[in-house]
Amino acid sequence: MPETSDRKDDHIRIIEEEDVETAGAGFADIDLVHEALPEVHRDEIDTTTTLFGHELAAPIVIESMTGGHPNTTKINRALAEAAQETNIAMGVGSQRAGLELDDEDLLESYTVVRDVAPDAFLYGNVGAAQLLEYDVEDVEEAVDMIEADAIAVHLNFLQEAVQPEGDVDARGCLEEIERVADGLSVPVVVKETGNGIARETAERLAEAGVDAIDVAGQGGTTWSGIESYRAAAVGADRQEAIGQLFRAWGVPTAVSTYEAAQVHDTVIASGGVRSGLDIAKAIALGAQAGGLAKPFLGPAGQGTGAVVDLIETLELELRTAMFVTGSGSVDELRDTDYVVLGRTKEYLESRSE
Amino acid sequence: MPETSDRKDDHIRIIEEEDVETAGAGFADIDLVHEALPEVHRDEIDTTTTLFGHELAAPIVIESMTGGHPNTTKINRALAEAAQETNIAMGVGSQRAGLELDDEDLLESYTVVRDVAPDAFLYGNVGAAQLLEYDVEDVEEAVDMIEADAIAVHLNFLQEAVQPEGDVDARGCLEEIERVADGLSVPVVVKETGNGIARETAERLAEAGVDAIDVAGQGGTTWSGIESYRAAAVGADRQEAIGQLFRAWGVPTAVSTYEAAQVHDTVIASGGVRSGLDIAKAIALGAQAGGLAKPFLGPAGQGTGAVVDLIETLELELRTAMFVTGSGSVDELRDTDYVVLGRTKEYLESRSE
Amino acid sequence: MPETSDRKDDHIRIIEEEDVETAGAGFADIDLVHEALPEVHRDEIDTTTTLFGHELAAPIVIESMTGGHPNTTKINRALAEAAQETNIAMGVGSQRAGLELDDEDLLESYTVVRDVAPDAFLYGNVGAAQLLEYDVEDVEEAVDMIEADAIAVHLNFLQEAVQPEGDVDARGCLEEIERVADGLSVPVVVKETGNGIARETAERLAEAGVDAIDVAGQGGTTWSGIESYRAAAVGADRQEAIGQLFRAWGVPTAVSTYEAAQVHDTVIASGGVRSGLDIAKAIALGAQAGGLAKPFLGPAGQGTGAVVDLIETLELELRTAMFVTGSGSVDELRDTDYVVLGRTKEYLESRSE
Amino acid sequence: MPETSDRKDDHIRIIEEEDVETAGAGFADIDLVHEALPEVHRDEIDTTTTLFGHELAAPIVIESMTGGHPNTTKINRALAEAAQETNIAMGVGSQRAGLELDDEDLLESYTVVRDVAPDAFLYGNVGAAQLLEYDVEDVEEAVDMIEADAIAVHLNFLQEAVQPEGDVDARGCLEEIERVADGLSVPVVVKETGNGIARETAERLAEAGVDAIDVAGQGGTTWSGIESYRAAAVGADRQEAIGQLFRAWGVPTAVSTYEAAQVHDTVIASGGVRSGLDIAKAIALGAQAGGLAKPFLGPAGQGTGAVVDLIETLELELRTAMFVTGSGSVDELRDTDYVVLGRTKEYLESRSE
Ligand SMILES: Cc1cc2nc3c(=O)[nH]c(=O)nc-3n(C[C@H](O)[C@H](O)[C@H](O)COP(=O)(O)O)c2cc1C
Ligand SMILES: Cc1cc2nc3c(=O)[nH]c(=O)nc-3n(C[C@H](O)[C@H](O)[C@H](O)COP(=O)(O)O)c2cc1C
Ligand SMILES: Cc1cc2nc3c(=O)[nH]c(=O)nc-3n(C[C@H](O)[C@H](O)[C@H](O)COP(=O)(O)O)c2cc1C
Ligand SMILES: Cc1cc2nc3c(=O)[nH]c(=O)nc-3n(C[C@H](O)[C@H](O)[C@H](O)COP(=O)(O)O)c2cc1C
Repeated sequence: MPETSDRKDDHIRIIEEEDVETAGAGFADIDLVHEALPEVHRDEIDTTTTLFGHELAAPIVIESMTGGHPNTTKINRALAEAAQETNIAMGVGSQRAGLELDDEDLLESYTVVRDVAPDAFLYGNVGAAQLLEYDVEDVEEAVDMIEADAIAVHLNFLQEAVQPEGDVDARGCLEEIERVADGLSVPVVVKETGNGIARETAERLAEAGVDAIDVAGQGGTTWSGIESYRAAAVGADRQEAIGQLFRAWGVPTAVSTYEAAQVHDTVIASGGVRSGLDIAKAIALGAQAGGLAKPFLGPAGQGTGAVVDLIETLELELRTAMFVTGSGSVDELRDTDYVVLGRTKEYLESRSE
Repeated sequence: MPETSDRKDDHIRIIEEEDVETAGAGFADIDLVHEALPEVHRDEIDTTTTLFGHELAAPIVIESMTGGHPNTTKINRALAEAAQETNIAMGVGSQRAGLELDDEDLLESYTVVRDVAPDAFLYGNVGAAQLLEYDVEDVEEAVDMIEADAIAVHLNFLQEAVQPEGDVDARGCLEEIERVADGLSVPVVVKETGNGIARETAERLAEAGVDAIDVAGQGGTTWSGIESYRAAAVGADRQEAIGQLFRAWGVPTAVSTYEAAQVHDTVIASGGVRSGLDIAKAIALGAQAGGLAKPFLGPAGQGTGAVVDLIETLELELRTAMFVTGSGSVDELRDTDYVVLGRTKEYLESRSE
Repeated sequence: MPETSDRKDDHIRIIEEEDVETAGAGFADIDLVHEALPEVHRDEIDTTTTLFGHELAAPIVIESMTGGHPNTTKINRALAEAAQETNIAMGVGSQRAGLELDDEDLLESYTVVRDVAPDAFLYGNVGAAQLLEYDVEDVEEAVDMIEADAIAVHLNFLQEAVQPEGDVDARGCLEEIERVADGLSVPVVVKETGNGIARETAERLAEAGVDAIDVAGQGGTTWSGIESYRAAAVGADRQEAIGQLFRAWGVPTAVSTYEAAQVHDTVIASGGVRSGLDIAKAIALGAQAGGLAKPFLGPAGQGTGAVVDLIETLELELRTAMFVTGSGSVDELRDTDYVVLGRTKEYLESRSE
Repeated sequence: MPETSDRKDDHIRIIEEEDVETAGAGFADIDLVHEALPEVHRDEIDTTTTLFGHELAAPIVIESMTGGHPNTTKINRALAEAAQETNIAMGVGSQRAGLELDDEDLLESYTVVRDVAPDAFLYGNVGAAQLLEYDVEDVEEAVDMIEADAIAVHLNFLQEAVQPEGDVDARGCLEEIERVADGLSVPVVVKETGNGIARETAERLAEAGVDAIDVAGQGGTTWSGIESYRAAAVGADRQEAIGQLFRAWGVPTAVSTYEAAQVHDTVIASGGVRSGLDIAKAIALGAQAGGLAKPFLGPAGQGTGAVVDLIETLELELRTAMFVTGSGSVDELRDTDYVVLGRTKEYLESRSE
C-alpha cells in the first residue's frame, strides 16, 4: 500500500481519473433465494453484528484507505465522523508514514479519526512487509496512534511487484504475523488489498493465531491496474505491461469469502462490494461483515453528510435483502439459502476437487 | 399491490411508458422434445383443464390486475367479457379499495366482471398484509363482491419495501393465511407478484392448507422496477436506487414453477409467460395453467375483441406445442419430455444440492 | 412438404429471398480430436460407404427437395447429373403432385432424374400424412416413377400446423408407415424436414420396421420460418406469429443424429449440415451419411457443373477431416474421438438423465 | 512447414500482413490460485529449468521458425544472439532447404545460430514426412549443421493438406520417428505446428521412444489460415475454403499440454503462448517450458536488443506469476494450484470420460 505522501497523491489522482476497477467479484453469480413470506417487520430487523466484542449497528466496514499526508485529514475526518454517527467500523490507511516520519500535520491525518469518533470501531493498518522491521512495540505504537480496536496487517505483494520500487521480499512474513498476533494488545486482522486470500493461505493464517481475515478479493479496485498507470506515467514500460497483465489476478471476492469462512470465524468480505445486497450475499457466503473502499472516496471528498448518506443507503439495501430473505438477524442471514451460478460455480467446483 | 386510485393510475402510466419487464423467466432455457410422429389430430387435442372443479377451455389465466378506480371498469369489462366468451380464468386486482372505500362507481370496477361473465372462473384478490386487519368475513365480502370462484392472496413484500409509504410488516401473515384457508367458502390461491415462491415457502403454504400457488416469479413485470420509477418521480432517491438494485430479484418463473409443483397439486405459472409455448413449457414443468398480466393490458384498452384475439392466439400456440409434442391432453403435456439448459439448469442443480 | 405447383413456387422464392435458416444444429459444439500422426495417405482414404447395399463414392446425400412443377425439371436434372457423375445419393421432393395430377411436363420433373442418372442411388418421397390415403401400390408407383432405390417418408407436422391450409391429422401414421415398410419393394427411410427425430420416436420407427432415419433436425432450413413468410404474404397474422414462435423448434441435428444412431444402423444426418467437416462430425456421432438441401439449390440453378463442384468441395473437406483424424475409412471415422461442448453437451446430458 | 525459399517469403509476408492467429489456446480459462503470503523474495526465485541436461535460465523457448533463405540469416542471428545472451532455448526452422539445396548463403541462414550462440541450447528441425526419404545419417547431418542439442521433428499434416502442392502421405511416419529416436546422437522432440497433440498420439510417441513433446496446439499461429491466404493469392479457391474451414482445428494448447504431460516427462507448451503468465499456466498444467514463435518475429526484425527485451519481459512476467503463487522454483510452480473454467473445463471433462 502507498506509504509516502507523494505516492499517495499519485494514487488518489489515478483512482479518480482512470478505470481502476475490475469485474468478476462474483456477487452477480450469487442469487439469494427469495422468501415470499418473510414473517418479519423490515424496520425491526436486527442488523447489528459484533466485531471482536464491539457491537456495530450494521455489518458494514469502511475499508483501510488513507492517512499519511496532510491533505488526507479531511477525508479521514469525514469517514470517521460518519462511522461515529452510524456506528459502523472504519480502518485507516497504512500507518507507515505516521510511524516513520516525524510531522505533526501528517500525524493528524491519522489521529483525527479517533478525535471525531470516540466510540466507533476503528482499526489501524500496517504492511506485512513492514513487520520484518517492526517489533511488537512498533505495532503497538500504531494502535496507540488512533486508540485502535484492532490492527489490519495488509498483504499486497502483487502491488509491490508491479511498482518499479516495490518491496518484493515476502520471506518471514508469516512468522512476523504470528509474533504480532501473539503479542499485540488488540486483535489482528490479516487483509489482502485486491487479490484475495485462498483457503490454504487462510488455514496458515489461522494456525498463526490471526483473529480475522479481510479477503479483499479480485473484483473492484485493482492495485495492479493503478500501479500500471503510475508506471506508464514515469515511462516504466515493462512494469506498465506487468500491471496490465495481472490487472484481474486473484481469487474472486465471492470465492475467497466462501473459502476463508470455511476456516475462520470472522471474515470481512471486500473487493468489489458495491451495495448492501452484495454485503448480504457475502454474509450468506459466511462473512461477518462487508467492506468497501473506493465507493467511499467520492462521498468523503464531499463531507460527512455524503458518507452518512452512503452508509444509510447500504444499510437499507442490506435490510431490504434481509427482509426478502426473511432474515431477522445477521445470523439468520448467514443461514439463508443461496444459489451459485456461472463462473463462480465453476470456480468453487474446481477448487473443491 | 396498488390499492388507492391515484397510485393505480401512476402504475398504469409507468407500465405503459417505461421498461418494466425483466428477462430471465427461464422459458428460453426449456426445450420441449419434438415428437415427429404425434399421432393426434391437432384440432381434436383436448386443451381443457380443471381448476377447483371448474372446467376451463384452456389452461390460460388472465392474472390479477385491476379494479379500484372508475377508470378501470372498462379494462375489467373487456377482460371479463373475453374470459366469458373463451371460458378461461380471470382474476381482478386487489379488492382493498372496494372493501374499504364506499363508492358505487369504484365498486363497479370490480362487480362488472361477474355481470358480464356469469359463467367464467373469476377470482378475487386481497393482500396478505391486509389479512392482519381483516377477518374471514371481510374476505368473504371480497368473494361476494364478484361471486368469486376463488380468492388470491398476494404476497408483495419487495414491492412494499420499495414504496416510500410501503407496508413492511410481514409478521403473522402465514397464520392469517391459514385461518382464511381454513374458514373461507372458496379455495385460496397464494400468489406472488413477480418474485416467485421457493420450494420451502411452498411447503409452508401447503402445511397452512392453501389450495394452490400462483408463482408469479422473476421474469416479466417487475414491481420493484415500477416502484423505482414512481419513487424517481417524487424524488425519493434512495427508494429509486433500491428499486433498481432489486429489479430482477426473485426465483425465476421456470424454477419456481418446478419447485412449487413438487409440493402442490395446483400451480399456476406466471411472471414473464409470453406465449402459448411458454404455457406449454410451464405445464411440462408441473403447472396446471399459465397466467399473463401485462400482455393483456394493451388489448384490454382496445376492447373485448382484442382480448379474445390474444386468448385465441395463446390457445393456438399452446395447441401447436401440444401437437408437436404429441400431447392429446393437458395431462399428457404435463408428462412430455423436456430439456433444461443454461442458467435454469444451473439454478435447478444448485437448488437440489 | 410443398405439393402443389404454386405453393412450390412460393417456397422457392421465399427460400431465395428471406432468412430461412436457424443456427443451433450443434456441429459447432463438436470437436473432432486431432490426430497429429494420421498414418494414412490423404488421397488413398476410402470415403465410400454403403446405403442399402449400394456403394456411394462418399457419404453425401442431396436431400429431398423438388419436382412437381415443370420449372423444377431443370433443377432436378442438374442435381441428378451431378449425382450420377460423382456417385452420391439423391432424393426428389414430395411426389404427391406426380402421383395425383396427370400432366406429362410435371411428371418429367421427377422422371428426369433417372433418365440422366441411371446408376445413382435415387430415392423417392411421400408424406406420412398421404399414406393414410395411399395403399402400398400407390407408393410402389412413386418408386416406379423414378426407379427409386428407396423411398423417404417425410414427417412435417409442424410445417403443416403453420400453414393456414395444413393437414394436421397425424393419427394412424405410424401404422401406415409400418404397413409400407413391410410391403414395399425398396427400403423405407423416415425423415423429418427440419425438427429432428428424438430417440423415443426413433425407437417406435425401429419397431415399425423402418430401414433408416434421416433426422433433418433443428438447424439449417426452417419450414416453420418459411411458412411464416408465406402466411405473412397472405395476411394470415396468427399463422405468421406461430411460424415465428416455432422457428427454431426441434431436436438439434447433432443431438438427433446421436440419439437416432443409438437405435438405428442407418442414419442420415441433415438439417444445417454445411460442410464436409459437418458430415465428418455427423459420422463420428453415428451417422451413415450427411445430407444437405438448401446449399444445393443455388448451384442447381447454375447447372450440373456447379453442383459437381460443391460435391467435390464437400468430399475434399470430408477427406481432410478424415486425414487429420487418421481415419482411413468411413467406419474408422465413425470410431474417431470427439468432444462435446456448450449447449449440445447440456442437451445430451439433460436427455440422458 | 515451409521449405523452399519462395514459399518461405510468401509465409513471412502473410504473417506480417494478415490475421493469422486464432483464439482458444485456453490459457484464459486457467486461473492460478493467488498466494497472498508467498514467503519468497521475488528476485531470488529460481527460474532455471533443465532441458535434456542443459540448464536454461528460464523455461522459455524460441520456437522453430526460420532459415533456408539468405534473407532469414538476419532473423536467426538476432534470435540466436538473444538466446545466447539470456541462456534460453531456440529452434531453427525446417532444415530441409539446408539439407537438400547446395547454397552457401542459404546454409549460413542456419549455421549462423551456432556461430553467435556457442553455449545456447539450440535444436534443429526436420519434417516427419521427410524422414521417409532420410536415413538417420541425414538427420545427423541436420544436427551437425548447427551442432544441435536436440532435433525437433515436426508434424504438420493439416498444413500440407491445405497446400495445393502439399505432401499428404503420412504413412510410416511413426516407424521413421522410432528409428530416428533410437539411432540419433541427440534427443528427439516431436512437435506439432499449431494443431496440438492429443493424449493418444502422445502415448504412441512415448512408446516410439521420443524424448519430448512440443504440443504446438490450437491457438496462436494458424498454418491452416496462412495457407488459405496463400491459396487465395494463386486463385486455388477450394484450398482457400479448406484452409478457412480448418482455421481453428486442433487440440487447444492448454488441453494438449495437460494431456501430453500425463504421458511424457518433458513437454513444451506452445501455440498461442503470449506472456510469461501463459508460460506459468502451462507449467502448472505440466509443461517443462513454454515456447513462442510469432511474437518473436517482429523483434527479430528489429535486432538482438528487441529480442532480449521480449525475453526479459517474459521472464519478469513468469517470475511475477511465480512470486504471487509462492513458487520458489519451476518445480514448485508445477505443483501450484489452479482452476480450470469455461470451454477448457468442458474440454477436459469430455476428454476424460
Ligand atoms: C484509495 C484506496 C486506498 C487504499 N489504501 C489501502 C491501505 O493503505 N492499506 C490497505 O490495507 N488497503 C488499502 N486499500 C485497499 C482496501 O482497503 C480494500 O482492501 C479494497 O480496495 C477493497 O476494494 P474496493 O475498493 O473494491 O471496495 C485502499 C483502497 C483504496 C481504494
Ligand atoms: C398492471 C398490473 C397490475 C397488477 N395488479 C396486481 C394486483 O392488484 N394484485 C396482484 O396480486 N397482482 C397484481 N399484478 C401482478 C400479476 O397478477 C402477476 O402476478 C404478474 O404480473 C404476472 O407477470 P406478467 O405481467 O409478467 O405476466 C399486476 C400486474 C400488472 C401488470
Ligand atoms: C427447397 C427445399 C425443398 C424441400 N422439399 C422437401 C420435400 O419435398 N420433401 C422432404 O421430405 N423434404 C424436403 N425438404 C427438406 C430437406 O429434405 C431436408 O430435410 C432439410 O431441409 C435439410 O436441411 P438443410 O436445408 O438445412 O440442409 C426441402 C428442403 C428445401 C431446402
Ligand atoms: C513464422 C513461423 C515459421 C515457422 N516455421 C516452422 C518450421 O519451420 N518448423 C516447425 O516445426 N514449426 C514452425 N513454426 C511453428 C512454430 O514452431 C510453433 O509450433 C507455433 O507456431 C507456435 O505458436 P505461436 O506462433 O502461436 O507462438 C513456425 C511458426 C511461425 C510463426
